[in-house]
Amino acid sequence: MTSPLAAGDLDATERLRRAEADQPSSPVARFGADEPLLLDSGAVLAPWQIAYTTDGTLNADRSNAVLVCHALTGDQYVTTPNPVTGKPGWWTRMVGPGRPVDTDRFFVICANVLGGCLGTTGPASTDPQTGAPYALNLPMITIPDMVRAQAMLIDRLGIDTLFCVVGGSMGGMQVLEWAASYGPRVFSAVPIATGARHSSQNIAFHEVGRQAVMADPDWCGGRYLAEGRNPKKGLAVARMAAHITYMSDQSLHSKFGRNLQDRDKVTFGFEADFQIESYLRHQGMSFVDRFDANSYLYVTRAMDYFDIAARHGDVLARAFRHTRTRFCVVSFTSDWLFPTAESKAVVHALSAAGANVSFVEIDSPKGHDAFLLEEPEMFATVRGFLMGAARARGIPGPAEIAEAPALQRAGA
Amino acid sequence: MTSPLAAGDLDATERLRRAEADQPSSPVARFGADEPLLLDSGAVLAPWQIAYTTDGTLNADRSNAVLVCHALTGDQYVTTPNPVTGKPGWWTRMVGPGRPVDTDRFFVICANVLGGCLGTTGPASTDPQTGAPYALNLPMITIPDMVRAQAMLIDRLGIDTLFCVVGGSMGGMQVLEWAASYGPRVFSAVPIATGARHSSQNIAFHEVGRQAVMADPDWCGGRYLAEGRNPKKGLAVARMAAHITYMSDQSLHSKFGRNLQDRDKVTFGFEADFQIESYLRHQGMSFVDRFDANSYLYVTRAMDYFDIAARHGDVLARAFRHTRTRFCVVSFTSDWLFPTAESKAVVHALSAAGANVSFVEIDSPKGHDAFLLEEPEMFATVRGFLMGAARARGIPGPAEIAEAPALQRAGA
Repeated sequence: MTSPLAAGDLDATERLRRAEADQPSSPVARFGADEPLLLDSGAVLAPWQIAYTTDGTLNADRSNAVLVCHALTGDQYVTTPNPVTGKPGWWTRMVGPGRPVDTDRFFVICANVLGGCLGTTGPASTDPQTGAPYALNLPMITIPDMVRAQAMLIDRLGIDTLFCVVGGSMGGMQVLEWAASYGPRVFSAVPIATGARHSSQNIAFHEVGRQAVMADPDWCGGRYLAEGRNPKKGLAVARMAAHITYMSDQSLHSKFGRNLQDRDKVTFGFEADFQIESYLRHQGMSFVDRFDANSYLYVTRAMDYFDIAARHGDVLARAFRHTRTRFCVVSFTSDWLFPTAESKAVVHALSAAGANVSFVEIDSPKGHDAFLLEEPEMFATVRGFLMGAARARGIPGPAEIAEAPALQRAGA
Repeated sequence: MTSPLAAGDLDATERLRRAEADQPSSPVARFGADEPLLLDSGAVLAPWQIAYTTDGTLNADRSNAVLVCHALTGDQYVTTPNPVTGKPGWWTRMVGPGRPVDTDRFFVICANVLGGCLGTTGPASTDPQTGAPYALNLPMITIPDMVRAQAMLIDRLGIDTLFCVVGGSMGGMQVLEWAASYGPRVFSAVPIATGARHSSQNIAFHEVGRQAVMADPDWCGGRYLAEGRNPKKGLAVARMAAHITYMSDQSLHSKFGRNLQDRDKVTFGFEADFQIESYLRHQGMSFVDRFDANSYLYVTRAMDYFDIAARHGDVLARAFRHTRTRFCVVSFTSDWLFPTAESKAVVHALSAAGANVSFVEIDSPKGHDAFLLEEPEMFATVRGFLMGAARARGIPGPAEIAEAPALQRAGA
């Protein structure tokens, strides 16, 4: 007898992930033909769906909702285990009881992005017109499209104004897009390790990744799901290249240096002699089962297209005119994917727009990925900012909640 | 009637290049079974050959020879057109009549590296044991192996001491290796945009490139030449990723920014909407015909393995003990592949060894590739350094040569 999960050419993780595309383990909001999503490309998506998780309790006046936006290969499982990998939520350092984004105080929402592969409509989702996966028939997605979808989810949840929108990297792009396009609905915003546009170098790295995927014959012109294949090699190469950009020269040096992997001397061959090679190969291989190759194409493209200023006469400040949102912009010294200069450009624009903005550049050797890692100064910054904003918004603190738990929690 | 060059699956450029592997257009020094090349791996290469070009005239006392070492994908055609691409020599800005490396004064030698594909023994060369291309049966090559081969060429040419060894990037690694292992034979050395070891980040980028090549089914486990195939897609992806590292964020931004390619607005698709994408695709595609995929694997590996200090008890200065070579070390501010810190480490080691060393960090936005580009300060630096060294070595200057041309030139 063969386990059903072991059957076929696909491994268990990949089969689990494919099932999540239409029927996620998380809650999902479905929108029918009467609630189409209008995309920047001019295309209209209907029906469509958005998968999300929530944590904490929405208060009586619905003022304590925090939207967490995930990065390129993230998902809605910010505090709960990912059903495909079984790994813990991806930002439990930042979000949870007593964490900077304190789920004892805030109601946290995190949605899988449009174009993703864990339950929100994306290229792996079934196209209702054909009954087969969309693949490249899905219209192109943009960051504003992702945010428009999130706004419809927030409406569905009956929330008018978000207390905060927070995210790093592509998540930060969504934060900025929320503030630019839905300013009155955003009380505070925390864009981390991000920028208001994707740089030429970043587009270049994404293009390398896409070409690596498309060069894999198992990509099948995008139709690999229908054909029972998976462009693992190409996607692994894409992930390896991208992963280098998430770290810093310094962190690679201190973590791996030129250390050899399980050997005393080089093999004079093409094995993974060096620890960094072994590490990268592992990063590539462990990625391909948990992520859809076409989603990788769509979501990288969305980032490439992102350029808030371009939609405002090339003047970024205009995007934030009359904003009343409070901003906390965070960057890291060793992040070369979204260097501090990109954050400063945002801060300057916000200042020019008269916004309430604080900016912290955190000294860290960990590169771009620092926002996902143990960075006490980042946690202290976000915690402090949210405490101040919560006071201004009149959201009771944990002590006040503790004094009157029944009253406060009954409202949700 | 079909042109022979148009026949078959291979295009003309690729066919030309394959022919060059055994029978280069340039001069070639062949070494028989009695002159084996001992490799760092312990393997012995015999017979073997090294292809090279010369420019200028060797003087009577054979004291004016300059060895130019090429970078990863370079070749021996430093001042003359590449027979495969038809393009001009790759460093005519630096080397030629009246140039910093003045061929009116110096006798310039440039050899294709061991493991290369334009006439020096490499994986595309015919294995005399089998009559088929070596492919992965070629023993692994190291930078010291490359230099050992060059030393045997210099012997063959009857030159005892090189007036100068000069090169950038991997060429600079060879310069340092010459100085470390053949110090008494090197009067002066100019390592540019390089380091005494390959960093973790650089190994990482090389590993991505190799995985991209090996992921291409046309690579055929390395046997593509015998099977009439070519892993073009994989090699193109490798080149694209590498090419990003040769430029700087700043140069990409000023050269391409987010400019669109031949269109007014994005296509909402995966075409090369952005100029940077079009440029990278072109870089990838134009590379694959002129370079052998297995050579790319071997030569990147040689760079990864390079670590002079490791052979000297992890103390770089020991490698240059008692050196009498004059050094001119050059780096570029925006080079993030071989950042100035790597050059400084070399300079510190040389200083600790009591060497005569000058160091110039050149302010340039052009990134690593600056050494191949129009960089007046680099030219002035190298020119000035070589003039001083030539005086010390007693090599007549152009004016002196002009006064007594018959005498000086008769000696060659």
